[in-house]
Amino acid sequence: VSDLLEPGQHRSDRLDDAALWLAMGRVEVSWMRALVAHGIAGPRHLLAVTDAVQGLALPDDASVEAAGNPAVALVDALRSGLDEEPAGLVHRGLTSQDVVDTALMLLAGSALDQIQGSLGAVEQALAALAVLHRDTVMAGRTLTQYAVPVTFGLKAAQWLEGVLDAHESLAATRAALPAQAGGAAGTLSLLSETTTHPLAVVDTFVADLGLAPAALPWHTRRTPITRLAAALCETTNALGVIAGNVSLLGRPELGEVREGAQAGRGGSSTMPHKRNPVLTVLVRSAALQAPHLLAELNTASALAVDERPDGAWHAEWPTLRRLLVLTVTTADQAAELVAGLDVDPDEMARRADRAADDLLAEAPRATGDPRQYVGQAGVFVDRVLARWDQTRG
Amino acid sequence: VSDLLEPGQHRSDRLDDAALWLAMGRVEVSWMRALVAHGIAGPRHLLAVTDAVQGLALPDDASVEAAGNPAVALVDALRSGLDEEPAGLVHRGLTSQDVVDTALMLLAGSALDQIQGSLGAVEQALAALAVLHRDTVMAGRTLTQYAVPVTFGLKAAQWLEGVLDAHESLAATRAALPAQAGGAAGTLSLLSETTTHPLAVVDTFVADLGLAPAALPWHTRRTPITRLAAALCETTNALGVIAGNVSLLGRPELGEVREGAQAGRGGSSTMPHKRNPVLTVLVRSAALQAPHLLAELNTASALAVDERPDGAWHAEWPTLRRLLVLTVTTADQAAELVAGLDVDPDEMARRADRAADDLLAEAPRATGDPRQYVGQAGVFVDRVLARWDQTRG
Amino acid sequence: VSDLLEPGQHRSDRLDDAALWLAMGRVEVSWMRALVAHGIAGPRHLLAVTDAVQGLALPDDASVEAAGNPAVALVDALRSGLDEEPAGLVHRGLTSQDVVDTALMLLAGSALDQIQGSLGAVEQALAALAVLHRDTVMAGRTLTQYAVPVTFGLKAAQWLEGVLDAHESLAATRAALPAQAGGAAGTLSLLSETTTHPLAVVDTFVADLGLAPAALPWHTRRTPITRLAAALCETTNALGVIAGNVSLLGRPELGEVREGAQAGRGGSSTMPHKRNPVLTVLVRSAALQAPHLLAELNTASALAVDERPDGAWHAEWPTLRRLLVLTVTTADQAAELVAGLDVDPDEMARRADRAADDLLAEAPRATGDPRQYVGQAGVFVDRVLARWDQTRG
Amino acid sequence: VSDLLEPGQHRSDRLDDAALWLAMGRVEVSWMRALVAHGIAGPRHLLAVTDAVQGLALPDDASVEAAGNPAVALVDALRSGLDEEPAGLVHRGLTSQDVVDTALMLLAGSALDQIQGSLGAVEQALAALAVLHRDTVMAGRTLTQYAVPVTFGLKAAQWLEGVLDAHESLAATRAALPAQAGGAAGTLSLLSETTTHPLAVVDTFVADLGLAPAALPWHTRRTPITRLAAALCETTNALGVIAGNVSLLGRPELGEVREGAQAGRGGSSTMPHKRNPVLTVLVRSAALQAPHLLAELNTASALAVDERPDGAWHAEWPTLRRLLVLTVTTADQAAELVAGLDVDPDEMARRADRAADDLLAEAPRATGDPRQYVGQAGVFVDRVLARWDQTRG
Repeated sequence: VSDLLEPGQHRSDRLDDAALWLAMGRVEVSWMRALVAHGIAGPRHLLAVTDAVQGLALPDDASVEAAGNPAVALVDALRSGLDEEPAGLVHRGLTSQDVVDTALMLLAGSALDQIQGSLGAVEQALAALAVLHRDTVMAGRTLTQYAVPVTFGLKAAQWLEGVLDAHESLAATRAALPAQAGGAAGTLSLLSETTTHPLAVVDTFVADLGLAPAALPWHTRRTPITRLAAALCETTNALGVIAGNVSLLGRPELGEVREGAQAGRGGSSTMPHKRNPVLTVLVRSAALQAPHLLAELNTASALAVDERPDGAWHAEWPTLRRLLVLTVTTADQAAELVAGLDVDPDEMARRADRAADDLLAEAPRATGDPRQYVGQAGVFVDRVLARWDQTRG
Repeated sequence: VSDLLEPGQHRSDRLDDAALWLAMGRVEVSWMRALVAHGIAGPRHLLAVTDAVQGLALPDDASVEAAGNPAVALVDALRSGLDEEPAGLVHRGLTSQDVVDTALMLLAGSALDQIQGSLGAVEQALAALAVLHRDTVMAGRTLTQYAVPVTFGLKAAQWLEGVLDAHESLAATRAALPAQAGGAAGTLSLLSETTTHPLAVVDTFVADLGLAPAALPWHTRRTPITRLAAALCETTNALGVIAGNVSLLGRPELGEVREGAQAGRGGSSTMPHKRNPVLTVLVRSAALQAPHLLAELNTASALAVDERPDGAWHAEWPTLRRLLVLTVTTADQAAELVAGLDVDPDEMARRADRAADDLLAEAPRATGDPRQYVGQAGVFVDRVLARWDQTRG
Repeated sequence: VSDLLEPGQHRSDRLDDAALWLAMGRVEVSWMRALVAHGIAGPRHLLAVTDAVQGLALPDDASVEAAGNPAVALVDALRSGLDEEPAGLVHRGLTSQDVVDTALMLLAGSALDQIQGSLGAVEQALAALAVLHRDTVMAGRTLTQYAVPVTFGLKAAQWLEGVLDAHESLAATRAALPAQAGGAAGTLSLLSETTTHPLAVVDTFVADLGLAPAALPWHTRRTPITRLAAALCETTNALGVIAGNVSLLGRPELGEVREGAQAGRGGSSTMPHKRNPVLTVLVRSAALQAPHLLAELNTASALAVDERPDGAWHAEWPTLRRLLVLTVTTADQAAELVAGLDVDPDEMARRADRAADDLLAEAPRATGDPRQYVGQAGVFVDRVLARWDQTRG
Repeated sequence: VSDLLEPGQHRSDRLDDAALWLAMGRVEVSWMRALVAHGIAGPRHLLAVTDAVQGLALPDDASVEAAGNPAVALVDALRSGLDEEPAGLVHRGLTSQDVVDTALMLLAGSALDQIQGSLGAVEQALAALAVLHRDTVMAGRTLTQYAVPVTFGLKAAQWLEGVLDAHESLAATRAALPAQAGGAAGTLSLLSETTTHPLAVVDTFVADLGLAPAALPWHTRRTPITRLAAALCETTNALGVIAGNVSLLGRPELGEVREGAQAGRGGSSTMPHKRNPVLTVLVRSAALQAPHLLAELNTASALAVDERPDGAWHAEWPTLRRLLVLTVTTADQAAELVAGLDVDPDEMARRADRAADDLLAEAPRATGDPRQYVGQAGVFVDRVLARWDQTRG
């Protein structure tokens, strides 16, 4: 995770190699715990693995490449510190993909929790804006030109509705993040040799991790990945729309909604007066990146073959992590951006009045007052607020 | 819609310009019917519009470009044939985007119905294969090399599970396809001037079209589009996985599952003996295209600004239609492909026996018989079949 | 080619199925001409094929799908009308991919010619703007906020430089568009059986078509396709930048550069006063689509396997055509857009003066006059104009 | 740069934050050197800046985000350690984008050098294979099925031709990597206040960095970025084609070309006998990722507005770096892969003989020997080898 070229990524601190390595260790511990629970291994094996996992150093780069994935290095490292018997039970019945996929789902879970927290803050701030500006008239614009009047409350409510949509998708995805446990080719072959109730072992494993059970392994059926990606991209889309609008409305010629000032932020390397809308720009930048990551994950999904594909699975890893990091970062930046927005209702009013002829051109009888021609804006605001209220339980 | 470079697109015959034009006319008729239902217009206005819509020729290209969208040409054409009063009521309260978005949702609905029909056939065929080959052993392969044994029934079940996932997403999307009715800037401004119960008019309109109501206009909140696209891409992913596997398994060196022969299909322009897996290749080709269309629609979604964006909306149209056409075509081709698959269990068995040493290398005590080392394959098949059974109601 | 959802595509009239079918026929005629030139066939065979090609109806959709590409249908149609001997010589030594790839290159050539013509007009208009406004001061803007002053001439020159870059790439691509002639698996096997100088036949064929020779067949080495796509996308990028800027500068709050008014264009279906920047929006919309088409063609290129791939080749066809159509249309729209731009130097001046404090904040000693702080803007304009002048020969 | 999810990225060690930070420092030093060369600053200023750059710690994450890019933090850090006069001269006349863009071009230059070195090794190995197997017959395959015979030499030559194409593009891009120097809004405004020959300063700066001069700043004209990206993607495409073919040909059922064995590589976490084609899979995985990164950079390019865009520029950074890292890693892995390929000409011959009926079905008179029906394969090999020979100068 880099911060020079991805400013703000320190906001996403649970997705780096160290976090993944920990999660992979946790997968092996949970698996051993399940083996113990079903009498395949003994408590001392669990103790041994739990100990071994503690402070396990990251593997050297060459060994990860040599195996083509990081799970082999983990298993080797765990086994090397153990006696023969517990060593033979570590990872028994699993395959590399089980460990990597499940660890990525654990990371995704953590990321989704963080994103949902940030979205909650975004929603809170947008709801407050929608309430406060329920009747704040402003120029509506279509294809860049004046249309009929709208309210800033409606605009905030539309943004909120988009965020609620994304939040809903994220929550559904979060609840469905599955563990992966299939063994070498998705049949639980070795586990089935080891015990007469292999599916119960898997159930215990899944429950221990707090992930969702999968009816069967998904080594080559990547719906969990593409749905997760779709929910993340829905999120960056919704936040990108906010940022794109703030970027426009905060231009000096419009000046209706600006990113809030904060000491030390948005300075220029050469122009002292500058107050650049930094968060706005960064959120917008994220929204330009996410769709391509989504496409990559779908391409990979479509190319899954055999019982584990020859590259399509590997192509998912950096892309999924990048999409998670990007969305965590962006959602947190967006929360700060939206909470600090400077809204100028006077400027909105002045413009609406000046542009009244255009804004009211559609009206059967020009009332002369844009405030009187906002249709159902208020009702729509109320509907969104009601939905928001419900989602908060 | 072209067939020279998109072979098989004649299977998708409800998505061309004529179909869109009809759907747009239907939107205007439904709107007028809603106006009549709420006393804003009279039955003769509805009659007039219904008449005017009949056989309305496609607009000339230049007029569509001049307006930047096809709705203006439709409204002009409808109004030109009417007296002043009904002319004034046509489209009253709507905006171009209402007509185009709603018409596209009608087309999407029709496409989704067709796709779901095709997927039903795919599922039926896959379920039959899963049942028939529940215990047909074959070599499992990971990263192209032999892993442990699997069954062809499990492979078919995995394909089926992927299709069921997609079908589930399509059904949810189908049920939620919303109509669009917001007027010039999404406030229902003009309609609100025209009647005291504008939202009731919208409800009638939506019900008449058989689409889902939207809490508020979604001119710049494109979740309905991106979710639809995600479900379509999930479909091509699932079908692409089948095609990719058939492509591999049907190589002459493997010969385990081949696209079925059909007179006149798969010939070569130069080699008389050739039997090319045409449907396989076309389905796979579609799966390579869809993710990029999905990305485009998400990019467009993220760039929505103002009350109607300056290009992002327009960028959706051809891409969404192309994705619909592609998925309708592909699903229908896939249904034919899967129904006609030539499965060779003997070849599978021969290979599994020859490769038994590799396939059983993992097993604690080599049984010597790959059939005895398929773990939970049968249980997994049964789980998928149970899901399939449930979805059929 | 549709115009309802892709407004303006009638500007691109040489890329539809009929044009492709003609080009495919032309490929077969050129091939026969080459066979005749080298004594493999006789003049009457050429006459027979030339006759057969005339007015050959488009094939039925099912036959195209059955073969998986349109070349088989063409060859069948040509042969069916001929006696056995000329029939046997038609297409002799070629393969389907030779015909389709070469025909697509012919279409691409025609499209590139049209695009280059349009870009010439864009350049002419931009050069005129750069000259006229070489010293027209306006506010510079970075990250949406006022930076130092620039000139509109420099802005036009930057746009021009981008178009010249793209034009340069297009010209290089145009000159290098290769014919394809490799036979069944890229070895010219059958042709080599037929004549002792097969490569001379290919040379004659290529020269007759006016395409570039390829050192060897490129059935699975798709650099010609991806380079073509890159040049097309470079074009839409450059035009998209112009449109994006015009879209911003033409907002009513800025009003510095607007899309020119034209009777009947940019009307709204509900607001009579509206003058929507239709061409601007359509050009921008194209620029949002092209990168995804470029990605698809690169994905397909990366997935080429064997001597002809199992889907990756097919995935190119609709995408390449779509990218060609899009770029032809967009370049022509852009030519009209740029030629008709309404530039308001007074508004630029007023804004620059009003914003002088910000625009001059960087300057060591505020001159008070933005006109005096435009650095090397004039020199940069001259450099671009000099390049433009050179390219016109 | 992570290695757990991007195995092998330690092969790319010059593109991380530390390298970028160094490159940014180098840009500031070169700029000061140019100021000194033209009498704007004195040698002691250069000394001071050179000293200040040494061992400058990476900035804290929050300050990078606060500025929205890493250049402000660099300038602040440099200035803070200097007296007022040299501090005022550091970065004088530049803008953040000048520093970041130029530093990225320096990194790109280093990456391209490394990639070209790797490609040289790939070419050497492929050329050797093409020579050695010039007449090694094997089955040609189209659409997965047997076509006519080819030679493995031709296959290697085709791969080589693709790599040579990419190498050619990389070399052209390398030679044209431009420095960026435009000042706040691309006019060199402040520099023009500081000296009467600002363009000479820029020339000295560019020459000192060993980059190419740009006729004018390219802050919003991103051809250098998109062309670089296209060349990188052309590279991963060419390498992906090799890997895709090796993946197929190395399947146990084909066994004609396998990734070479290497102790400790390709092991499985559960199956001891496994020898997974790790490099093959990783190269293929990279080829699936690159097109999406290319698309992102083109999207960003198309969205450049004003004198510095509101997010499109920022969206380039992580994507360009990722594409560079990916290509460096992949090219190096590919060099190792290709150099170590196990080619089995006997297996090729056996298959060709067994499949002779199919492979010779096209031939006018079946010779019965596939070796006698390879057409111009040898000539094509020779052509590619001649090109390769030439490129080595």
